[in-house]
Amino acid sequence: MAAPGCCCEGLRGFLFEYDTPRIVLIRSRKVGLMNRLVQLAILAYVIGWVFVWEKGYQETDSVVSSVTTKVKGVAVTNTSKLGLRVWDVADYVIPPQGENAVFVMTNLIITLNQTQDHCAEFPDKTTTCSHDDNCTAGYIGTHSSGVQTGKCVPYNSSIQTCEVFAWCPVEDDGILPKPAFLKDAENFTLLVKNNIWYPKFGFTKRNILPTINKTYLMSCKYHAQTDPFCPIFRLRDMVDAAGQDFQEMAVEGGVMGLQINWDCDLDKPASRCVPKYTFRRIDNKDSSHTVSPGYNFRFAKYYQTAEGVDSRTLIKAYGIRFDIMVFGKAGKFDIIPTMINIGSGLALFGVATVLCDIIVLYFMKKKYYYREKKYKYVEDFELGANECYGSQEERQECGGDR
Amino acid sequence: MAAPGCCCEGLRGFLFEYDTPRIVLIRSRKVGLMNRLVQLAILAYVIGWVFVWEKGYQETDSVVSSVTTKVKGVAVTNTSKLGLRVWDVADYVIPPQGENAVFVMTNLIITLNQTQDHCAEFPDKTTTCSHDDNCTAGYIGTHSSGVQTGKCVPYNSSIQTCEVFAWCPVEDDGILPKPAFLKDAENFTLLVKNNIWYPKFGFTKRNILPTINKTYLMSCKYHAQTDPFCPIFRLRDMVDAAGQDFQEMAVEGGVMGLQINWDCDLDKPASRCVPKYTFRRIDNKDSSHTVSPGYNFRFAKYYQTAEGVDSRTLIKAYGIRFDIMVFGKAGKFDIIPTMINIGSGLALFGVATVLCDIIVLYFMKKKYYYREKKYKYVEDFELGANECYGSQEERQECGGDR
Amino acid sequence: MAAPGCCCEGLRGFLFEYDTPRIVLIRSRKVGLMNRLVQLAILAYVIGWVFVWEKGYQETDSVVSSVTTKVKGVAVTNTSKLGLRVWDVADYVIPPQGENAVFVMTNLIITLNQTQDHCAEFPDKTTTCSHDDNCTAGYIGTHSSGVQTGKCVPYNSSIQTCEVFAWCPVEDDGILPKPAFLKDAENFTLLVKNNIWYPKFGFTKRNILPTINKTYLMSCKYHAQTDPFCPIFRLRDMVDAAGQDFQEMAVEGGVMGLQINWDCDLDKPASRCVPKYTFRRIDNKDSSHTVSPGYNFRFAKYYQTAEGVDSRTLIKAYGIRFDIMVFGKAGKFDIIPTMINIGSGLALFGVATVLCDIIVLYFMKKKYYYREKKYKYVEDFELGANECYGSQEERQECGGDR
Repeated sequence: MAAPGCCCEGLRGFLFEYDTPRIVLIRSRKVGLMNRLVQLAILAYVIGWVFVWEKGYQETDSVVSSVTTKVKGVAVTNTSKLGLRVWDVADYVIPPQGENAVFVMTNLIITLNQTQDHCAEFPDKTTTCSHDDNCTAGYIGTHSSGVQTGKCVPYNSSIQTCEVFAWCPVEDDGILPKPAFLKDAENFTLLVKNNIWYPKFGFTKRNILPTINKTYLMSCKYHAQTDPFCPIFRLRDMVDAAGQDFQEMAVEGGVMGLQINWDCDLDKPASRCVPKYTFRRIDNKDSSHTVSPGYNFRFAKYYQTAEGVDSRTLIKAYGIRFDIMVFGKAGKFDIIPTMINIGSGLALFGVATVLCDIIVLYFMKKKYYYREKKYKYVEDFELGANECYGSQEERQECGGDR
Repeated sequence: MAAPGCCCEGLRGFLFEYDTPRIVLIRSRKVGLMNRLVQLAILAYVIGWVFVWEKGYQETDSVVSSVTTKVKGVAVTNTSKLGLRVWDVADYVIPPQGENAVFVMTNLIITLNQTQDHCAEFPDKTTTCSHDDNCTAGYIGTHSSGVQTGKCVPYNSSIQTCEVFAWCPVEDDGILPKPAFLKDAENFTLLVKNNIWYPKFGFTKRNILPTINKTYLMSCKYHAQTDPFCPIFRLRDMVDAAGQDFQEMAVEGGVMGLQINWDCDLDKPASRCVPKYTFRRIDNKDSSHTVSPGYNFRFAKYYQTAEGVDSRTLIKAYGIRFDIMVFGKAGKFDIIPTMINIGSGLALFGVATVLCDIIVLYFMKKKYYYREKKYKYVEDFELGANECYGSQEERQECGGDR
Repeated sequence: MAAPGCCCEGLRGFLFEYDTPRIVLIRSRKVGLMNRLVQLAILAYVIGWVFVWEKGYQETDSVVSSVTTKVKGVAVTNTSKLGLRVWDVADYVIPPQGENAVFVMTNLIITLNQTQDHCAEFPDKTTTCSHDDNCTAGYIGTHSSGVQTGKCVPYNSSIQTCEVFAWCPVEDDGILPKPAFLKDAENFTLLVKNNIWYPKFGFTKRNILPTINKTYLMSCKYHAQTDPFCPIFRLRDMVDAAGQDFQEMAVEGGVMGLQINWDCDLDKPASRCVPKYTFRRIDNKDSSHTVSPGYNFRFAKYYQTAEGVDSRTLIKAYGIRFDIMVFGKAGKFDIIPTMINIGSGLALFGVATVLCDIIVLYFMKKKYYYREKKYKYVEDFELGANECYGSQEERQECGGDR
């Protein structure tokens, strides 16, 4: 009867009505406090952890960087084979320029005046022979220097090996100079120029800070405490900072990581955004697990004799490759992540109510009493009794519409 | 009258009161079941998909890697131009070392003993001429080898071309050796050393697993089934794995991607975190769309004659560049993403109620009846009637405060 | 008494009951409208911003790319030192190939026929001397060309410097050719081949679009308006596009960023996914802050005289390094981010209710009246009065169960 009166509302109702849930307010210190505590915890988590600590209100962008390097230093060596010799940048940096890495040769096995010719292979268990039958013409192994001719020839007074057609004489990399040939490399310096860019925020900066002047740059050397922003690094200092021994590393070579960390909070002034240098040895050198240690590669210098014969000097270069790894995340306030975090934070508040409800309605002495207050039961099928009550309530509740 | 009595509570109220929404409990199989099903679906999604499948409870970090490579192998060629010749690493790997890529020359066009001189340009439709007037002194085209002198000279018995001042004789890259000059390159092997690092978790690992010993490393070759963790790859096997034909690729060159996937679940033991190798041809070679196919570049070896004249050997090197691409994401349990996912998961539960409410209140036969139960109408302006009811309810509800 | 009747329900109840919060429906234009407006704002934000604008329904993947480059062009120089000389790709691109960068030499300081010998150091404040005592045998400074012998010898008619054992004669990089030695480099062209891959979506594409044919590629030059998809760039155009002056940059060198942006919406046809080229000077050249400007490095060409003496030509190469930086994010519909955003969006709706409640219950004239309607007070301890009401309500509410 009154039902229609109270229920037929269209747009008007939609617009001009405000519906808010009906609440049971239970006056109970236990539950009340518990509820507030849970809410407090959640609030603390959302505000304190997500926002303050993790900066959940920030949009982040990862760094784009460009690196150029320059090595400086001269080393002098004096060996019976090469005599007195000076090595400068053009000699020991190979290739002359890289993109994010620079290789400094610290040790080498040099084979002078190789020509395409026939000679005895370097002896190992597969190449040593006592008779031509041990060698198969045309055979090329994975580790052989050339193609076998099928002959068995003396390698030296004591050993015979299969003859090969190769760059002769073949390289003898049996014994490695120790200490490293260019042990003075520890005093070389590496200048790193690094420009970074955060595309999303259009923020660019270089590791040579505006505060650095020419004279300082000419003389400074990086030091974690005293000169943390000097972009010039002494090779040995880097290796030491990584907890390694330079001279030991120089013998077999290795790969060092020069990590530049550019974590920046762009809500703060740009001057606060500075590089942080750390050093790490990348090719893990654990004595227990020394499978193919170090770092080396071969390259050659090609010559032509007056008769137009090609000859070359083969160099197996051991050394340290410095990989400049640029990291970093910049954060700046943005509405999207803020909203997402607030949203899920709010949702978590629901947990408080759910928890307390469970306790109140299932574990408290007066649970039945509370349930009656919280719940109103409605049958799908109507009994007379229910009808009467229902309608009474209804009259009462919808009374306002008459 | 009683109003003040029941409403003025300050902090004390805030702390010691617990408010929980009043609920209408509708006993209806239809709606009840539906409601539970929707909730179940959402729960299944949140737990099953977001958490179990997508590991939404994990914080992820992307890999930082360092790669070093070493190629091994020797090839022998025998041509009228160069005679019998052996090629080793120092000859065919250019530059001798890269950062994440290594180039293996498989084919080449060699121009010996070039000197700075005057000679006939390589003939094409722009450079062929019948008379000096066809050539303009000082002209330099995009594809010309040098600067034109204005003369028209014989290139060979049949053709005349404009004379140029250039490195002479000019390169003739008209015909490309087929099969590839260094076709034996298919048996070369590539050793890849890859060290990875997950900075956020301080987790490092190398692709030479602790289980691999020296002897195995000396002899093994990668095979998807039998040797999935051997870091030594036969060039041809890689190209085959990418569904390409090595010999065909060797002629014009190309770019191969050697992808190393380091997806790791760091909640599991570290030994479960192993590399996965896949191979892909990067420069897409579709017969339909052969604009500038393959991969090649030019470089020169410089010589100086006894008279101090510069001469060079120009090499147009075709070959395969292997880009080592290291991928991967590591995941580890973290509270933030967990909370965010739980939060938005909970929020989704709201959907269940919303859905069912719509059905109950708009589509069911007894919708009016249910609405009465759910809603309590309150007028902004008070009628006497409403007042009475209101106050009656009030007396009733706030009775407890007296 | 009736309590047990209405409250003891196990699974049956759980399954066949549907609970929905009881709502107070306040008929108030003010509050109603306000509520709807707040909800509308949130809806607009969620739909419009998060979904339409930020494409919150998409899963994103970042690009994996492979770049190959090829420079074309010839320059002629005529100096007293070198005479008439032509420079082609093999001469001015060092190293012959890079991974994501290519270096074009535009200026150089060349030191011919250096041999390991004794000679006077290049004069600067530390090396000039008047007497042998000013020089210490064996001393090697950071900027010295070699090791000092302890003698003081004339560098030229006017100056005396300490003698060094080094590659002699030492390089004189005091004066830099201006205009740049290879100023014609501005007309060189750079062909960039870029293949990209979105692993998550298995989507690959190259910057040489299917629409480009061979003839177009032979002749085209990139132009932002007329030829935005031609992958061939004139060096000078790139520098100009970055707002720099080529000739000025050519003198001291620098680093240019050629940025290729591959932002793609993969819900749209693949043909809509095209590269966008932008240019930027990376080594920031601000007149105010010219600490170590430009870009240069040293390399040498090694020769061997007939007597087998090593000699070299040292070249300090200034030039422009073009870093090809490939960016981009691809988005494709995915259920996870969609749900997360919907979830947190829904949660935000809670804000609307919270806001309005605050206003209704604390700031409106009839706040007390509304509160009575919204809240039902329940005492933890029961008074007789409360009991009666409680039980009456109870009888009424649970009536349906009898």
